[in-house]
Formats: sequence, C-alpha cells, structure tokens
Amino acid sequence: MPDEPLYDVINRRRDTRREFTGEPLDPDLLARILSAAHCAPSVGMSQPWDFVLVRSPETLAGFARHVETERDVFAASLSGERAKTFSRIKIEGIRESGLGIVVGYDPTRGGPDVLGRHAIADAGLYSVVCAIQNLWLAATAEGVGVGWVSFYREEFVRSLVGMPEHVRPVAWLCVGAVSALPEVPDLERFGWRHRSPLDTVVHEERYGVSGSAPTG
Amino acid sequence: MPDEPLYDVINRRRDTRREFTGEPLDPDLLARILSAAHCAPSVGMSQPWDFVLVRSPETLAGFARHVETERDVFAASLSGERAKTFSRIKIEGIRESGLGIVVGYDPTRGGPDVLGRHAIADAGLYSVVCAIQNLWLAATAEGVGVGWVSFYREEFVRSLVGMPEHVRPVAWLCVGAVSALPEVPDLERFGWRHRSPLDTVVHEERYGVSGSAPTG
Repeated sequence: MPDEPLYDVINRRRDTRREFTGEPLDPDLLARILSAAHCAPSVGMSQPWDFVLVRSPETLAGFARHVETERDVFAASLSGERAKTFSRIKIEGIRESGLGIVVGYDPTRGGPDVLGRHAIADAGLYSVVCAIQNLWLAATAEGVGVGWVSFYREEFVRSLVGMPEHVRPVAWLCVGAVSALPEVPDLERFGWRHRSPLDTVVHEERYGVSGSAPTG
Repeated sequence: MPDEPLYDVINRRRDTRREFTGEPLDPDLLARILSAAHCAPSVGMSQPWDFVLVRSPETLAGFARHVETERDVFAASLSGERAKTFSRIKIEGIRESGLGIVVGYDPTRGGPDVLGRHAIADAGLYSVVCAIQNLWLAATAEGVGVGWVSFYREEFVRSLVGMPEHVRPVAWLCVGAVSALPEVPDLERFGWRHRSPLDTVVHEERYGVSGSAPTG
C-alpha cells in the first residue's frame, strides 16, 4: 500500500483522458481503491453507493459511441473560438483505460429512516460523491488514472449496466494504468478555463464579504 | 504542513460532534484546508464552490436553534427503539466548534458553456461535494474535526449568511480543534447503523452480479 502524503495526492490528482496504457490493474490495488471509496462519510451511515466494474470491450465501445453523440450535442451549442478550443480537447478514455466504474446512488439503502436526510433529500447523493472523491485520491496515490465522464444520459447508462429504476447513475469513471498523470489540467492547457484565486470563493461571516480571507 | 499518508487519513476521517474544544484554528492551517478544497476536480473546471466562514456567536446560535427544531421534526417521525437510539445521538457541534463553513454551489460560475454539464445538470453540485471531501480529509490530516450538519432547510441557511438566490447551500460544516477524533463512527457506536461489507456494493459487468468482486 503506497504511503503518499495527503496534500501531495490532492495536488497531483488529475482528470485523465489521454494517458491510459490499457494495462490491467492488479486486483489488490483495485480492492484498495474501492475500499477507500467504501470508507467515505455517508448521511445516516447509509452507504448508498454501488460500483459496477465494466471491462467488456463491447460495453465500453457502446458507451463510447453514446458519449461521442453527446459530445456532438455540446459542440453544436458552441461557436467561434470556443468551438475551436473544444475541438482540441479529448473528453474521455473509455476504451483506452480498459475499465469503467459506474457509480450508482441507491436511496433505499439504510432506509426507511435515514438520519440526516429528511430535510435535505440530496444528502444521499452527496455521500456518493464523497465516495467518488475518496476513490479518485486513492487511485492517484496508487499512480492510477481516473477520468470522470459526464457526457451521457443517465437513462442510457442505467440500461447499459442493468441498474434498476431506483438506482441513479452518478458517474462513469475511466480507471486505469497510465504512462503518467498530467501535470496541468487539460482544460487549462488548452485554454478552456483557468484556476481562480482562493480568495474569490472565501467569504467572512456573510456571502460577498471577502475582506479578511485567510491568505497563508 | 502535515505529512499524513492518504490511506491513513481516509481511515481516520470521522464525522465529529462531541469532541470540539472551541480553541481557535491557526489561520495558516485554515488556509491549507480551504486550498485543499479549492484543488478539487470540477466539471468543465467551473470551480463552482463558495465557502462562508461563520464565527459570530449569534449566527452560530441562530443556526443551532434552527437545527434543534429540525431534530425534533425527525425525532417525531421515529418510534420505539429507533426513537430511543436517536435520542442518545448528538447531531451537531455548531457552537462548540466555534467555526461553521457554509459551502455553496454557484451554477453560474464558469458559464455560459460549462464543458460536461449539458447532459448532467447535477455535475456542478457533484464538484462542490468533491471539494467538501478534500476539505474534510485535509482537516483530518491536520488533526482538526469536521461535522457535516444536514438537519436544516436550505432557505434558512441561505438567508442566515446572505447567499443570493442563485447560490445553493450544500453543507454546513462544523470545523474546529478537537480533543481527539472518534475512533468508531457515533452512529455505529450507538447502534444506529453498521458498516456493510465491500462486496455488497461491488458488481461485475452488470448490476447485481457480484460473483468475482475483488477481495484483497
């Protein structure tokens, strides 16, 4: 088990699309990153996540085709420079990674009385995303790439992997061995967006008051 | 900056309610955990999060009173053993921690064309939760407690800290120095819920197929 310091891992974590080698992952390594996900906080300890491990080339190819059509939908909404910039950006490594982890949210888990969910219905969904972030950091510590694909319709994914109606697909993660993790986010490298300074998102006491934000 | 290995931090992270000492946090430490949050992945690099740091005793007390009424709402929905178990569980350390971090989601950030959000409207919300999990892990590495409170109405919190209509409150985090982090989750300790084995949430190729889940 690697011994990577947390802050280093947080800084090195990248959305990975281009760097997958297709080499299969060691089963123990995969079990460690899934265990890290399963250690996430969850509302009322409901542990409402599911992980479907997809390796079948047919299923990966079917999903990649679907994502390609959704890429076209988004591309058609852009014009001028934005369209040109987007055309250079690779948005997924579905086939190249060799493994898709479909993460689902099952709101019936831990029921009927989920402590902490009566007022915030989405709290269960939040738990699932905490698990995804744990998985992503664990993969990074292991030197494994993760790419979160969101160019899809939930209904398509649900049907592709046979999730029942009550389980909501939350993410398709391309997970696999990589030549290296990218150092700079692709979207920054290709000029789509840039990182904002921390003090633009920190407020003191009330929203919009940024006077004395920490600067350390 | 502490050098805690990621997997240790993931295993030690706990929802904290009882252990806050009220001692103020070092500003550099607070800046490090907010920077960790700000390093999270975000859809289309939209960085759609906001962090409102609340320390005013009046605001903390006002929120605590609101949470108390929501606790009563949930308690009233329980009966018998569940009601008795719940009555023993402390659900927040709002005043004791001395600091509330209200995390918001601003869907207008990174607009109008957020790469990767056209098909999954909630993808921006997911980014905010990734930031929360980064913050929580960083706090754990620093030996600082975090308790996620979800017994509230979003409209109350928005108005309490002056968030504009278009920003959605996603979490109230009680963040503060602690005597120690709990070793066992409170909900487990008090018999509310137990951890489930990993293989109950891992599926191979299709949902419901758990035959060859990794076991390492």
